[in-house]
Amino acid sequence: MSERTDDLQRNGLRIIQETELFCFGVDSVLLTGFAAPGIRRGSSVLDLGSGNGILPILLSAKTEDTHFTGIEIQEECASLARRSTELNALTERIRIITGDLKNIDRYTAPSSFDAVVSNPPYVKAGSGRDYANKSLSVSRSEVACTFEDVARAAAFALRGGGSFHLVHRANRMPEIIKTLMEHNLTPRVMCQVHPNAGKNASMFLMTAVKGAGMEMKLLPPLILCGPDGEYTREVKDIYGL
Amino acid sequence: MSERTDDLQRNGLRIIQETELFCFGVDSVLLTGFAAPGIRRGSSVLDLGSGNGILPILLSAKTEDTHFTGIEIQEECASLARRSTELNALTERIRIITGDLKNIDRYTAPSSFDAVVSNPPYVKAGSGRDYANKSLSVSRSEVACTFEDVARAAAFALRGGGSFHLVHRANRMPEIIKTLMEHNLTPRVMCQVHPNAGKNASMFLMTAVKGAGMEMKLLPPLILCGPDGEYTREVKDIYGL
Repeated sequence: MSERTDDLQRNGLRIIQETELFCFGVDSVLLTGFAAPGIRRGSSVLDLGSGNGILPILLSAKTEDTHFTGIEIQEECASLARRSTELNALTERIRIITGDLKNIDRYTAPSSFDAVVSNPPYVKAGSGRDYANKSLSVSRSEVACTFEDVARAAAFALRGGGSFHLVHRANRMPEIIKTLMEHNLTPRVMCQVHPNAGKNASMFLMTAVKGAGMEMKLLPPLILCGPDGEYTREVKDIYGL
Repeated sequence: MSERTDDLQRNGLRIIQETELFCFGVDSVLLTGFAAPGIRRGSSVLDLGSGNGILPILLSAKTEDTHFTGIEIQEECASLARRSTELNALTERIRIITGDLKNIDRYTAPSSFDAVVSNPPYVKAGSGRDYANKSLSVSRSEVACTFEDVARAAAFALRGGGSFHLVHRANRMPEIIKTLMEHNLTPRVMCQVHPNAGKNASMFLMTAVKGAGMEMKLLPPLILCGPDGEYTREVKDIYGL
């Protein structure tokens, strides 16, 4: 295993990552930029499948007086997340639980969170893709939980009117929407993310609201890279570059 | 009533419209540009809620050796559509039935079409919006049929693997997707349409395939107008301008 500590380019925050475990990507950073304006001061926020803790750590800097609970099934990831929390002196605001989100009712009361965030595994289990190790496979494919498990946990934990902010692969958009709706989570905002201006979207950001009526907003898309191959100004702003 | 004949800017086609009935808009034109590449030579195509026949008339010029059946509940609209069909010498390729798409099984055999197109009523019945007359209200709001009725008719008429191409309002996207999936019509392609580059989408174009597996493509969005307020080059190309 080889460990590194990365500067998050925001408020001096750093994160400890193991190169052989799941390391955060641009999707997590974009999700924090998308979710933060919808997370009110003083909110309690649940992160489902917290990995190395990137979402609560970044969101702690982008929101005010908020408190985060991260649930992560892999102890080696949860342990990294806890160490990063300590490194950033965020133990008062971020709590990491090693646990299975399928058993969400063991860790929290129903309707107890104002918001839920998740960067869930993107790929269906058994889709034939091989990962370098079992831990990566749990982070990236639905071997430990399906999106339905994530939606069920979000619906359980959210208060009525609370928001679930997520990122997922473009190719799975219709079933993600259907699954959310089956769990009383009404999709309200979507933003497609395109690698560059002429390409199909690779992923999408979405906010669903528990128990809300139907009224969707389809935002202008986010374009990752300009013709020069560099991140666009909008993405650099989200990174804090 | 006041009648006019409009030039469709393509192959010399014209359409007869009554200004007090529903007149086609940019949404219908964009739908023909979106659907045409997916309609193979020799296809049989059903138009659900055909209005004045704009979709089959334009699509007859954008596809080869295709045959169209339009179902329209309002006789005054169906009659205009038939007259436009005659005016354009398209009676061999376009047949307009006055009928209710909820009774689709009276007009066609199951699984008998290669493709279905529809520009359905956009607004929920009883949403409080008043239209100038009853005919406009039938064309624009779900008083005579809901989107579920349209999806059911499309699923009945399409052969397995056949495509349903539609346009709808952005704010209803999640329920449109859910309804399609409930009728074995798998959304496969979506294109958001934005009034201009900085605004949220007003509508979306979608292709769903009967009985297909899940694999969504989210296309780069279509922008209607540039900063000068004129249609963008892309939209002008679809219009044939």
